[in-house]
Amino acid sequence: MSPARSASVAVLGATGLVGREMIRRLERRGFPIGRLLPLASRRDGRSVRYSGESIPVEAATPERLADVDLVLSSAGGEVSRALLPDAAARGAICVDNTSAFRLRPDVPLVVPEVNGHRLDGLRIGGEGAIVANPNCSTIQLVLAVAPLHERATVRRIVVSTYQSISGAGARAVESFREASRDHLDDASADSGSDALAFDVRPDIGGVAADGDSVEERKMILETPKILDAEVAVDATCVRVPVVRGHAESVWIETAEPLSPEEARATLSRAPGVRLADGGSGAVTPRGVEGTDPVHVGRIRGSRVAGRALQLWVVADNLLKGAALNAVQIAERIVGVAPEGREIDVATERCVG
Amino acid sequence: MSPARSASVAVLGATGLVGREMIRRLERRGFPIGRLLPLASRRDGRSVRYSGESIPVEAATPERLADVDLVLSSAGGEVSRALLPDAAARGAICVDNTSAFRLRPDVPLVVPEVNGHRLDGLRIGGEGAIVANPNCSTIQLVLAVAPLHERATVRRIVVSTYQSISGAGARAVESFREASRDHLDDASADSGSDALAFDVRPDIGGVAADGDSVEERKMILETPKILDAEVAVDATCVRVPVVRGHAESVWIETAEPLSPEEARATLSRAPGVRLADGGSGAVTPRGVEGTDPVHVGRIRGSRVAGRALQLWVVADNLLKGAALNAVQIAERIVGVAPEGREIDVATERCVG
Repeated sequence: MSPARSASVAVLGATGLVGREMIRRLERRGFPIGRLLPLASRRDGRSVRYSGESIPVEAATPERLADVDLVLSSAGGEVSRALLPDAAARGAICVDNTSAFRLRPDVPLVVPEVNGHRLDGLRIGGEGAIVANPNCSTIQLVLAVAPLHERATVRRIVVSTYQSISGAGARAVESFREASRDHLDDASADSGSDALAFDVRPDIGGVAADGDSVEERKMILETPKILDAEVAVDATCVRVPVVRGHAESVWIETAEPLSPEEARATLSRAPGVRLADGGSGAVTPRGVEGTDPVHVGRIRGSRVAGRALQLWVVADNLLKGAALNAVQIAERIVGVAPEGREIDVATERCVG
Repeated sequence: MSPARSASVAVLGATGLVGREMIRRLERRGFPIGRLLPLASRRDGRSVRYSGESIPVEAATPERLADVDLVLSSAGGEVSRALLPDAAARGAICVDNTSAFRLRPDVPLVVPEVNGHRLDGLRIGGEGAIVANPNCSTIQLVLAVAPLHERATVRRIVVSTYQSISGAGARAVESFREASRDHLDDASADSGSDALAFDVRPDIGGVAADGDSVEERKMILETPKILDAEVAVDATCVRVPVVRGHAESVWIETAEPLSPEEARATLSRAPGVRLADGGSGAVTPRGVEGTDPVHVGRIRGSRVAGRALQLWVVADNLLKGAALNAVQIAERIVGVAPEGREIDVATERCVG
């Protein structure tokens, strides 16, 4: 266990929805920052608030990243591909929130509570590396399923998602609000198919020739990489007219028997998970906005298979689904969350 | 094959979302009506338009139903329970859109394209009877799955729904619009959990002690009654902030092999189904508003089972999910759609 030392930290995409949450989480969780460098794909005169100061956002260039310990990147795959390999070669640990490197065999894809051991050996001041933050919908799925997998060996997952607009970024949220307002004023107004006012769409990121959408492909391929190569996933990813928070209807089949009661007991002790066992367990995206854990409710048995369970899984996609998970990875690397001890997200006070 | 004769038709719940669509469909489809009686649970001074006339809505009483040939009922389970048994005893055929009688073994539960033979022998002027119209989410599920079941024997269904607010009635739509507007004006405003502005809820009708919601229970029990007692269903029913149109993410496992291409070919010939095969197949609820068929797109194979398929199923819940299906049942009974010939919904022009 190495003591924490202050790090110089670049946040790439600092003015985006996820970047802003990253900076807030770094501050609120007392991350040991020596110097914060908020960067964006181009300089646009904006600044960010950190620790009572206003820090101007600069353009991300290889030079700006030259002497940085840690890069948290959320400015799109293109920017990550252009900048992170070089930064890593110069010794920075790069936690990448885009899909650019997630499936590369040499890049760890990490949810700290699930496979944090993949970070063992990484430290600032040592060799540089790229670590990938999984897709938002994958993170909340594996966090809920991993404890059940450990207990009863999950073989099959069938998941249908209810994903909010904020997963598509700040501009998408703006267009969505505008289109929703237009639609309320005049239901016959067509605000363009992208804006999704009062509609649901099952083609997030576009549908590929093999039939899966880009978003579904992420869940299908990332989940086994994090959880277990033997786990098979059928996913239907759907954008819904919700601003923030993703929900998932999850069906799992296990190799060993696992009752809903046993699943509930297992999840009640799982790090990063909060059991939504008040009332019906029907937790909702708006209800968990701003909270850290992955909320699991409506744990039911199955009529179609002897060893199957149904779960309802909800999380704030900008926090555990993105910024928080990236900051947790960074914490383990600098030694704030020492190796071998899981970060107890479940007992944290809800914020925001 | 009996020739159509004009019927005296009562529409119970004539001012509700479904009742209004029933009257519109009866008129547009040229249903042979001798006399139309629009009724509501109580008289409130409203009238309905039918065939260029304005007909005052009267209070539903046993006396008003005394000499009616056909009752289309959509005024809630309590009203149906109070009035239909008596009307049927007096000789009326009652097509009930509530859940009051659906699971009674002596009551046919009918989607005409799937099990229209259950109506054989029923006719106006003969013995009275109650026929149940299935739940909206069940209708679109069985219409899409039945042709695949016939071809390859469906054993298991795992379905997650995306159900619109109009399924909860006209007042729910009004509150929803209001709450959505409030939320756009002030995101921190809490408009009450029932209004569901920009949120999704997985507890339609409330969650029972055994863990299933009332809506899920309908799909779980109605589907085998219509399709095949051997078919098992796991359902998660979710209300989404969409005004009209339900979508379903459907996963099926079959006893015999069935490729996505074979499924597509089978569904392209299925009555009442329209294949959404343009582009990505990502049909949406708003996109099908006002249309009659059940739209099926995104037909994919499975990674989790050798004999499984995934479908995306969308329909107008007020039309095929409610009013249209009830009118189709009535058509078969009066002989507009003669026994033995399926109503070719698929080739109908989209209306509205």
